[in-house]
Amino acid sequence: MNKMKPFQELVPYEDALRRIQKSVRPVERKETVPIENALDRVLTEDIVARMSVPPFDRASMDGYAVKAEDTFGATTLKPKNLKLSAVLHAGTPSKEIVGTGQCIQVATGAPMPDGADAVVMVEFTEKRGDAISFLKPVYPGANISPKGEDIEEGQVVLRGEQQLYPARIGALTALGMKEVSVYEKPKIAVVPTGTEIQDVGTPLKAGHIYDVNSYTLSSIINKNGGIPVRSQAVPDTTEDLKKAVKEFLEYDMLVFSGGSSVGEKDLLMNVTKDVGNILFHGIQIKPGKPTLYALVDDRPVFGMPGYPTSCLLNAYLLLVPAIRKIARLPPRATKTVMTRLAQRIVSSLGRKQFLPVKLKGNYAHPVFKQSGAITSMTEAHGYIVLPLNIDVLEKNQKVTVTLFE
Amino acid sequence: MNKMKPFQELVPYEDALRRIQKSVRPVERKETVPIENALDRVLTEDIVARMSVPPFDRASMDGYAVKAEDTFGATTLKPKNLKLSAVLHAGTPSKEIVGTGQCIQVATGAPMPDGADAVVMVEFTEKRGDAISFLKPVYPGANISPKGEDIEEGQVVLRGEQQLYPARIGALTALGMKEVSVYEKPKIAVVPTGTEIQDVGTPLKAGHIYDVNSYTLSSIINKNGGIPVRSQAVPDTTEDLKKAVKEFLEYDMLVFSGGSSVGEKDLLMNVTKDVGNILFHGIQIKPGKPTLYALVDDRPVFGMPGYPTSCLLNAYLLLVPAIRKIARLPPRATKTVMTRLAQRIVSSLGRKQFLPVKLKGNYAHPVFKQSGAITSMTEAHGYIVLPLNIDVLEKNQKVTVTLFE
Repeated sequence: MNKMKPFQELVPYEDALRRIQKSVRPVERKETVPIENALDRVLTEDIVARMSVPPFDRASMDGYAVKAEDTFGATTLKPKNLKLSAVLHAGTPSKEIVGTGQCIQVATGAPMPDGADAVVMVEFTEKRGDAISFLKPVYPGANISPKGEDIEEGQVVLRGEQQLYPARIGALTALGMKEVSVYEKPKIAVVPTGTEIQDVGTPLKAGHIYDVNSYTLSSIINKNGGIPVRSQAVPDTTEDLKKAVKEFLEYDMLVFSGGSSVGEKDLLMNVTKDVGNILFHGIQIKPGKPTLYALVDDRPVFGMPGYPTSCLLNAYLLLVPAIRKIARLPPRATKTVMTRLAQRIVSSLGRKQFLPVKLKGNYAHPVFKQSGAITSMTEAHGYIVLPLNIDVLEKNQKVTVTLFE
Repeated sequence: MNKMKPFQELVPYEDALRRIQKSVRPVERKETVPIENALDRVLTEDIVARMSVPPFDRASMDGYAVKAEDTFGATTLKPKNLKLSAVLHAGTPSKEIVGTGQCIQVATGAPMPDGADAVVMVEFTEKRGDAISFLKPVYPGANISPKGEDIEEGQVVLRGEQQLYPARIGALTALGMKEVSVYEKPKIAVVPTGTEIQDVGTPLKAGHIYDVNSYTLSSIINKNGGIPVRSQAVPDTTEDLKKAVKEFLEYDMLVFSGGSSVGEKDLLMNVTKDVGNILFHGIQIKPGKPTLYALVDDRPVFGMPGYPTSCLLNAYLLLVPAIRKIARLPPRATKTVMTRLAQRIVSSLGRKQFLPVKLKGNYAHPVFKQSGAITSMTEAHGYIVLPLNIDVLEKNQKVTVTLFE
């Protein structure tokens, strides 16, 4: 057992996060994607309008295009009458111009005919044969959307680094853009380790268990703007791990699971120490104490705990911030709920504890079974945090639940 | 102008929502998808475990498998010594059994060797040649994860209708499942209307504007569990609209944009009235008054306002709940922020107003330019609600901002 090594110095959670944030670098590769596929992607550069929106003065109401001064003085009792010279639909520029004493019927969105400087809403008119009676005056510019009102040609409409939310997709298409330059999604290698780990879809061999972590980690990566590249399980030998680290260095980040505990077969630490720098190994949190983080050739390498619950919780806590920074996404907006604790909790002294809970009937019910149990997470809506220096939370105590979804 | 029809009765927002919720039906079609693609999908049926997890008793710590009674009475000063008979890695079932006076070295996750009923953590042992000294007693069952501790064979692990979050994906793979039955994503036709609407990617014709709404609506549909099927713009004629309604009835929902205002060319209402039932046309909200909702052959048909901002805001307010119910997803969890208003706001009397705002320096800044302006939404982080009966909000007043993302 002489190969077993105790954890070096355990770092506080905030410290671990800081070391991760400081060391990961946003992806630099760019690609051009069709607008249909650009949702939630990140712009590489400012979008400068190559046209005005709207591209012409247009009616913003159904009604009549007029010279405003022709309506001055109009009242319900003494309406002003103008000759209807044409009808204009949206989509067709007018061939007619509006002369003094004339009006042209316009639909919302129709380009303003020359000669007119206002639109009178249909509600304030009456049709009398060939003439229209106007019951109210309008000022010049009334009910017109002038060219460039929304976007002026040359204007910066969106800025580089902005994420393409639905409204921003709309702004791009308003400018007629069919495709857009965005940062590539980071590709993240997901590597389960351990000879006992077997992929789904084949009958389980004696002494084996099915791979859980590569699927949960891939899900987390997918949800946070990355592309997971799942590997088959790698045996826990120095050689195999070294080979895997080398092989997957082509990706933007490497996430191993299992093999970071203090066991004879836990070799990832040694491997990454040999070929790179360990930024921490061991965090003052529960679950997730054994998490390893290293840089190899400037590539972030995570060694996540092998136990499914620890692995997944630590993915929310540590991996998500890393993925999002590499993907150039803003930090995940976590939702929290204030509620009360359904039962007394005794915590581990000296470690910040993250406790999965289920929300039910205005109470947070702890669902943590043991770190090996994936089912403790399937029921959980979120987690509560027990600080380092608190060892007991009483029943009915107010707690803040951070939601997973 | 005699074809222009005023809105019938405007319904309150809550009423509109209720009518939508009552009339849309969750999708019934099922499909089997690989686990890799099952994230966020909805289970069609309960998942009953066909195996136990773990599938065998296993060591939950690195240490030595022993007969617990062989350690009884051990202390640091008077350790108990047991003969080390084998070393057992995870992944390999033991061929040896643990006899009285013996122990087998086990790694975390290794199947428990026969004869042993406990594991002593390596920290409480000392190696002396062929023998191991135990410095502490353990009770039977210590540091063992018994078969089925996480999931027992026959147990219901997940329930039909549950959404497959990352942890639930993990539960499926723990059971070795390679694929899973989920509900199909609803297919939703997105149909811009208007002869002036032109798709991106071609030079803009005179009097035309680029299609914005079909892209923003498709984005919203994508983000809420639906599959958008984008149509080219349909001209605003009774015939074309009737044809479009018929053609797209094969989908789970139809969303038209434009053509629901009170204009000569606004014919969707007439078309849907002819072939179906209008559930409402006009809501007491701003923007979004002209929104139309109908059922045709039991298919929900939305007529969204043509103006990009109105269309998009109404998509968040009305379409999202409909899409999610059809997709069998829980209501969207909206995030809110409490803040103060940066400027005085005067509202429209008699309509509930949804005002897009930008969050900046602890203030909510209204960004609404006019309903035609897509840029008023690109800057917005969320919206505030001005109730029907309130017409002024003062500067510095506390407001709740509902975030879009």
